[in-house]
Amino acid sequence: MERQVFLNGTFVPEAEAKISIYDSALMFGDMVFEMTRSFNKKQFKLRDHIERLLYGVKILQIPFDLSVEEIEEAIYETIKVNDPLFEKDDEHRVMFEVSRGTLGLYHQVKDIHIGPNFIIADFPLRWTVSTMGPLFDSGINAVIPSQRAIPSTLLDPKIKNRSRLFYMMANIEVSNYSGENVWALLLDPDGFVAEGTGDNFFIVKDGTIITPEGRNILRGISRSYIFEIAEQLGVRCIEKNIDIYDVHTADEAFMTGTPFCLLPVTALNSLKIGKGTMGPVTRTLLDTWSKNVGVDIEKQIKKWTGNSKLPAGVPTPYSFKRK
Amino acid sequence: MERQVFLNGTFVPEAEAKISIYDSALMFGDMVFEMTRSFNKKQFKLRDHIERLLYGVKILQIPFDLSVEEIEEAIYETIKVNDPLFEKDDEHRVMFEVSRGTLGLYHQVKDIHIGPNFIIADFPLRWTVSTMGPLFDSGINAVIPSQRAIPSTLLDPKIKNRSRLFYMMANIEVSNYSGENVWALLLDPDGFVAEGTGDNFFIVKDGTIITPEGRNILRGISRSYIFEIAEQLGVRCIEKNIDIYDVHTADEAFMTGTPFCLLPVTALNSLKIGKGTMGPVTRTLLDTWSKNVGVDIEKQIKKWTGNSKLPAGVPTPYSFKRK
Amino acid sequence: MERQVFLNGTFVPEAEAKISIYDSALMFGDMVFEMTRSFNKKQFKLRDHIERLLYGVKILQIPFDLSVEEIEEAIYETIKVNDPLFEKDDEHRVMFEVSRGTLGLYHQVKDIHIGPNFIIADFPLRWTVSTMGPLFDSGINAVIPSQRAIPSTLLDPKIKNRSRLFYMMANIEVSNYSGENVWALLLDPDGFVAEGTGDNFFIVKDGTIITPEGRNILRGISRSYIFEIAEQLGVRCIEKNIDIYDVHTADEAFMTGTPFCLLPVTALNSLKIGKGTMGPVTRTLLDTWSKNVGVDIEKQIKKWTGNSKLPAGVPTPYSFKRK
Amino acid sequence: MERQVFLNGTFVPEAEAKISIYDSALMFGDMVFEMTRSFNKKQFKLRDHIERLLYGVKILQIPFDLSVEEIEEAIYETIKVNDPLFEKDDEHRVMFEVSRGTLGLYHQVKDIHIGPNFIIADFPLRWTVSTMGPLFDSGINAVIPSQRAIPSTLLDPKIKNRSRLFYMMANIEVSNYSGENVWALLLDPDGFVAEGTGDNFFIVKDGTIITPEGRNILRGISRSYIFEIAEQLGVRCIEKNIDIYDVHTADEAFMTGTPFCLLPVTALNSLKIGKGTMGPVTRTLLDTWSKNVGVDIEKQIKKWTGNSKLPAGVPTPYSFKRK
Amino acid sequence: MERQVFLNGTFVPEAEAKISIYDSALMFGDMVFEMTRSFNKKQFKLRDHIERLLYGVKILQIPFDLSVEEIEEAIYETIKVNDPLFEKDDEHRVMFEVSRGTLGLYHQVKDIHIGPNFIIADFPLRWTVSTMGPLFDSGINAVIPSQRAIPSTLLDPKIKNRSRLFYMMANIEVSNYSGENVWALLLDPDGFVAEGTGDNFFIVKDGTIITPEGRNILRGISRSYIFEIAEQLGVRCIEKNIDIYDVHTADEAFMTGTPFCLLPVTALNSLKIGKGTMGPVTRTLLDTWSKNVGVDIEKQIKKWTGNSKLPAGVPTPYSFKRK
Amino acid sequence: MERQVFLNGTFVPEAEAKISIYDSALMFGDMVFEMTRSFNKKQFKLRDHIERLLYGVKILQIPFDLSVEEIEEAIYETIKVNDPLFEKDDEHRVMFEVSRGTLGLYHQVKDIHIGPNFIIADFPLRWTVSTMGPLFDSGINAVIPSQRAIPSTLLDPKIKNRSRLFYMMANIEVSNYSGENVWALLLDPDGFVAEGTGDNFFIVKDGTIITPEGRNILRGISRSYIFEIAEQLGVRCIEKNIDIYDVHTADEAFMTGTPFCLLPVTALNSLKIGKGTMGPVTRTLLDTWSKNVGVDIEKQIKKWTGNSKLPAGVPTPYSFKRK
Repeated sequence: MERQVFLNGTFVPEAEAKISIYDSALMFGDMVFEMTRSFNKKQFKLRDHIERLLYGVKILQIPFDLSVEEIEEAIYETIKVNDPLFEKDDEHRVMFEVSRGTLGLYHQVKDIHIGPNFIIADFPLRWTVSTMGPLFDSGINAVIPSQRAIPSTLLDPKIKNRSRLFYMMANIEVSNYSGENVWALLLDPDGFVAEGTGDNFFIVKDGTIITPEGRNILRGISRSYIFEIAEQLGVRCIEKNIDIYDVHTADEAFMTGTPFCLLPVTALNSLKIGKGTMGPVTRTLLDTWSKNVGVDIEKQIKKWTGNSKLPAGVPTPYSFKRK
Repeated sequence: MERQVFLNGTFVPEAEAKISIYDSALMFGDMVFEMTRSFNKKQFKLRDHIERLLYGVKILQIPFDLSVEEIEEAIYETIKVNDPLFEKDDEHRVMFEVSRGTLGLYHQVKDIHIGPNFIIADFPLRWTVSTMGPLFDSGINAVIPSQRAIPSTLLDPKIKNRSRLFYMMANIEVSNYSGENVWALLLDPDGFVAEGTGDNFFIVKDGTIITPEGRNILRGISRSYIFEIAEQLGVRCIEKNIDIYDVHTADEAFMTGTPFCLLPVTALNSLKIGKGTMGPVTRTLLDTWSKNVGVDIEKQIKKWTGNSKLPAGVPTPYSFKRK
Repeated sequence: MERQVFLNGTFVPEAEAKISIYDSALMFGDMVFEMTRSFNKKQFKLRDHIERLLYGVKILQIPFDLSVEEIEEAIYETIKVNDPLFEKDDEHRVMFEVSRGTLGLYHQVKDIHIGPNFIIADFPLRWTVSTMGPLFDSGINAVIPSQRAIPSTLLDPKIKNRSRLFYMMANIEVSNYSGENVWALLLDPDGFVAEGTGDNFFIVKDGTIITPEGRNILRGISRSYIFEIAEQLGVRCIEKNIDIYDVHTADEAFMTGTPFCLLPVTALNSLKIGKGTMGPVTRTLLDTWSKNVGVDIEKQIKKWTGNSKLPAGVPTPYSFKRK
Repeated sequence: MERQVFLNGTFVPEAEAKISIYDSALMFGDMVFEMTRSFNKKQFKLRDHIERLLYGVKILQIPFDLSVEEIEEAIYETIKVNDPLFEKDDEHRVMFEVSRGTLGLYHQVKDIHIGPNFIIADFPLRWTVSTMGPLFDSGINAVIPSQRAIPSTLLDPKIKNRSRLFYMMANIEVSNYSGENVWALLLDPDGFVAEGTGDNFFIVKDGTIITPEGRNILRGISRSYIFEIAEQLGVRCIEKNIDIYDVHTADEAFMTGTPFCLLPVTALNSLKIGKGTMGPVTRTLLDTWSKNVGVDIEKQIKKWTGNSKLPAGVPTPYSFKRK
Repeated sequence: MERQVFLNGTFVPEAEAKISIYDSALMFGDMVFEMTRSFNKKQFKLRDHIERLLYGVKILQIPFDLSVEEIEEAIYETIKVNDPLFEKDDEHRVMFEVSRGTLGLYHQVKDIHIGPNFIIADFPLRWTVSTMGPLFDSGINAVIPSQRAIPSTLLDPKIKNRSRLFYMMANIEVSNYSGENVWALLLDPDGFVAEGTGDNFFIVKDGTIITPEGRNILRGISRSYIFEIAEQLGVRCIEKNIDIYDVHTADEAFMTGTPFCLLPVTALNSLKIGKGTMGPVTRTLLDTWSKNVGVDIEKQIKKWTGNSKLPAGVPTPYSFKRK
Repeated sequence: MERQVFLNGTFVPEAEAKISIYDSALMFGDMVFEMTRSFNKKQFKLRDHIERLLYGVKILQIPFDLSVEEIEEAIYETIKVNDPLFEKDDEHRVMFEVSRGTLGLYHQVKDIHIGPNFIIADFPLRWTVSTMGPLFDSGINAVIPSQRAIPSTLLDPKIKNRSRLFYMMANIEVSNYSGENVWALLLDPDGFVAEGTGDNFFIVKDGTIITPEGRNILRGISRSYIFEIAEQLGVRCIEKNIDIYDVHTADEAFMTGTPFCLLPVTALNSLKIGKGTMGPVTRTLLDTWSKNVGVDIEKQIKKWTGNSKLPAGVPTPYSFKRK
């Protein structure tokens, strides 16, 4: 058997999980989504993800009316179906998403699906993080591209949507930089640090953890969890506008994201941040996170290292040839 | 037989033309596309559309290497396959598009398609324009929503891409306005008139045709054709920043778009523009266009009126129910 | 007898309280003003209003030199003159204002008043709030118009001045929306929520009361009083940039304004905020306010309901006809 | 007899031409107006002024429905009434304006005027220009204040309205500069030269006359007339963004305004423009204008010099004292 | 003997301390610098200054590798060399700076210095402050010029660099204002108060000391010291966006700068702030500072008054004449 | 003998041409300058350069009063002095510049120069262009850094001044890009293409030559000369806002600068422009220029190739060591 994707109430093999070319998701990037992970196969902060999805559904006025509980149930069912196909040491990376469905104009296409699409995919987390193991040691070299983040007033990144071509363009842009471990770090149009292309950014200065105000960024659930851990540790953690100077003069920096939790950022535009290694506050946050969830996050990812994930910005090497 | 969609070199039934949920098109709105039409079943300005598509392919660095000629050939082949299923008085609305393909991360999904997707769909133009017949008489009531156009410096609308959620949001917003025939007209962040959500905008003032500078808009191929017709007629046609006052004080206004060619805009925020009817310059442009292509554009669309297309901004009335 | 307006030291009947067409107030919108109310016929926060007026006088360099005490005395005198004409259950709505006076250019007009104008009007509060009773139950549907607030750097709304045509334009704009109880809610040019056209805006999220920073808004005296009540109640109340997403995801929202004190906002662009009714924090604030001032605010306004006030944005239905 | 002001169809003495404090004009700066002048007692470009007034009436949705002809007739009637009181060598400065009228809220004030106010005042032009005679020789020293013009996207200066407090503030600001003949010249928020506080600005460079694009300015009727004269003279005259550097490096500069027609600007921030005197192109424009209208504009204004008009930005020296 | 300047490891007489015209400092304003002072001939916060210099060196990637200690040692050596030439009551004003050095292009100039320049000058503080004594009594009249501060996103003022022509332009601009004691106070492009041209700005309101957020300003070391003193005194001191209204309505205001420590700002654009004299909080801060450093700051500067320093913005009165 | 630099009327050896550390040029980047070149040892457009210098002198109010003729004479004298030291095939690269001089504060430094500095240096052009020969064949790869151009409203690049640290920062930024022949191409804050860090930019599209509007750029004298040549050739050459899309879709592109005249730009962010080689219009412009000045520009520079000039953005490899 193969892994199955939940698609509008039925299960289909992964490679058959598809969306019509007439769907609003493809026509307008009009889809909301979430991607979660498990620790020891237990989903982390699943409710928070579902609630954020439903905020997006509401604001975009997608006529989708499942409750938090119904969504949660469908996710657990999907995991249950797929779990036998996972390695013992795998974690479940779940992607769930809702599109508005086929645009009204195309409803007359014969046999076409009418109404929103609700999809749940479940695949091994190791796919996503297989190249990240070394980054716990080397750290990320955050590079500021010319591409700016689209601000919330034009298209709100706090709605986790699929109109994110500018992330792809930022990734392509920084793929032209020299050196290793380069990840894009976007400024917003005001010149403040916003976010990575899928990650939140933090600095540590004089013992305080600082992250950009929740304005022109996704308010990541890992980002929120840093606030929780900081409180647990009695460390001050605040939201504040950060500019480039603040990063250059910070003691430490790190990125957060659901799949990898937390990775050190050791350089900005190739200039060392702090000592150029994972700093003590970052280390403590990571260790506490690991302890809280009962998984040594760094060790787990390092163990998986060796898989084939390409850096996000590099176009796939396959060019299209008509047969 | 059913209409067929060209999908990476093979033909599939329309309802089966789908894209993987792991495709960059769905993940990032990372797809370029074109939509053309025929007059008397002859494609109009097809080369211009293909060239624009390839500019997008180049700038987004999608590894797709078909030539203009190869794309053209594939389109004609698709039309040929489908033409028998079209009514005698139908026109071919062709949509062709290229996505980057499955993200590298998901290449290990069993049997998943690797490399860019190249898709050509071909369906009756009447679907798109079936509700537009009355607009030739009433005109459009252009309404300025709060939503601003994303400017080219953040995500260039001149690349005809699929990260267009803000179009959908503008459409939803103006669907809350009172009255009939409301279409969104977007300002850019500088407060200049940009474009509709899929249309270009023109005013006529003292005999001169004026359209926004080609900056924060799609440089539509119908828009370019207005310049051609104006030259043919000896009417001055220029690009210039337009602000709301200019529209309120214009003599005439109209929108252009591939499916309907040209529709009068007779009101801005429910205030009459000029006399509140299609003006003489607009009329001449439309008639000349009809004459040039050998189709009475207005008459053809009016004949098709009565089909079921819903206004773009209205969410489809079907809500999702898990079975 | 009729109600009298204090005009430069004398009392004139209300309909004769007028300003010369050559006054700077009419020429430039160059006037500062305040509007207060009473509870049980006792003026509320009158000193705060007078002080704000005098800040405006100072910044605009209007050569007006009455002290706080002199202004206060004149107001009380005006109230005393008019009180016999008020119903027993009326409250005094006092408007006092200062204009620079006739522009120097027109000083040679025979018998024209020279120097600043100082005016105090006093009319029944019920005029202002007569349509608002139902809003305590239905709540306001706050609608974001395309019109943005003029930021403080161009014309400071913290100076309560009479160059407020853009308020009128926002009101006109939202009068085109479908549905009931629509009030305009302005964004500033940065895309943050600013204020209503005469009201301040608050949200409640996770028990914290949040209102926009005091930048591109009038710093309302009712707004300040919310901070006082919050402190009295031990509820956290802060200033923070608010964007649209924050409102859509808030638990509660409300507007404050001198005449009505506090009204629930139950929808943003017709999408429910929280449960779509007055929330518990809002309710407590209102009840505490009522208790503090010894007037059941909601009950009082509901009792007055039935008068003829038209929604602010609707042009008066009388068209000018030259006799 | 005294000069009379037309007020809603009747004539009242000048000092009694007043607007209620409850009028939308005073409450919101919600009034449109025009100010014209005569040459040899013949109104200049009166129709253009009336048409501009009516564009404002339309956009602001003031329910005022007089036609161009009716307005014109009322103006001529007003002039006729007042002409006997004018000196033989006087010119008629006509101000006509429309306000929305008493806000609905105040309709219950006893005997208050309901509906728009339509006012026509007619006074000697010499009042306005009595201090300007020397400026034809010295030229204006244009000074850039910190205050920026409100851009059209926030409040359109092309609608000649009464929410112009920022003009007054700019005037006050430059009244603090050292030196003579200082007039404010506003930049718009983009840093381009916009306009004076009631005047349009031009430079001459290499034989071409250049004036700011018609965006963040009033499109003055004198400004338009410069285009007419330039065409008459065969001189190139264009609209173009102007920045400070362009003014500093210009050959000549001038301001236009209805009362004075055209005055040389000989310095920017006290630095000489060109030779620091009225340049030859400016001179030719002025002379042609004089010739076209049959009045030696400069000579006429110089003859009137000596009246008491105070510089615009200086607060009147009378301070308010309660009697 | 004359005072000596440390220049790349050797001492040269003051007038011979020069930089090549081919140095990056002159070509690009590409130099970082610091200016300190002593109290009782003991350098104040020298380490903080050196650390800030090295942040600039790092961000600008100047290949300069002296340690904090080495720099400190060189400074003390320079002071030692010069101290015998100082008056007994003088203080040491030390300027130290690093330039990138001769651009590569000019390395072939015979005998030209290669590599960064490191310079330490040491001159009597009285030169800088000789005109400031009266300001402790009169206060500064802060004037907002049209020139805006360059924001950090374009050229970060937090890097204390030499591309500061806009400071000079602001100074020239305000030198045209009428009146005494005028210093420029810059707004940033958002319209917030930024800083003086070499000074930081504070207001006091309701007992709280407020200074602009550390964004578009130099984060002055005197500014930081105010936070220290405030903590010592138990006074609340915060960073917050300040707009013009906040200054006009403040109780007190002051500027800080290394040479003079703290001076009262008693007017904004010639309008009194608070009572128009040094306020009690400002007085306490100054007195505490004096006490902390063992020097009566005000008395010392007043004693030095009478030297010839010209106001910063006034061009020197000497015009160049070729011999 | 060595090359001599004209310094305030006397000649000094090149390595001794220095500016005091107390000069406004070093303190504020407060200096205007020009750099010219000869063709066959005859200065090109020298008068235009001198006039531009004097515009800067005027606007910055530097008290320098030499006439165009006097400056010209001094330049020719400097060339005459140095010419014997030039190779027969050398060209004269002349740099002349004016600083305000020692700040008033430092006038009491013993023997310090008072008044503006006027400097003329004259060195072989080959130094500047020695690495550029291959670029005529490969073309430049223009890369957009994150650093934006400072707009004219904040610090006008049209004044050729020395506060250009942001050029250096852009150069450093793009030195991190992979690949050869990378030059920075700056966007202005509006997202339009501005200029290189010392060069002007042009595209060719459909036979028209297009260069950015003369707003946020230096209006280069080579740039102006392209307009002259275009007119000579009958090719249309215009100023227009250019955005990134326009460059990607251009047929050709090139940069102009005094030392190299014109170099092809064959890629933007490593994506080929047009065919990726010098296009025919560019070729014709270059050839015409060569013909007009009687020097084969490309051949001359290629002949000089091999000298040691380092790419602009790379810090010199020498680190400072205190002796």
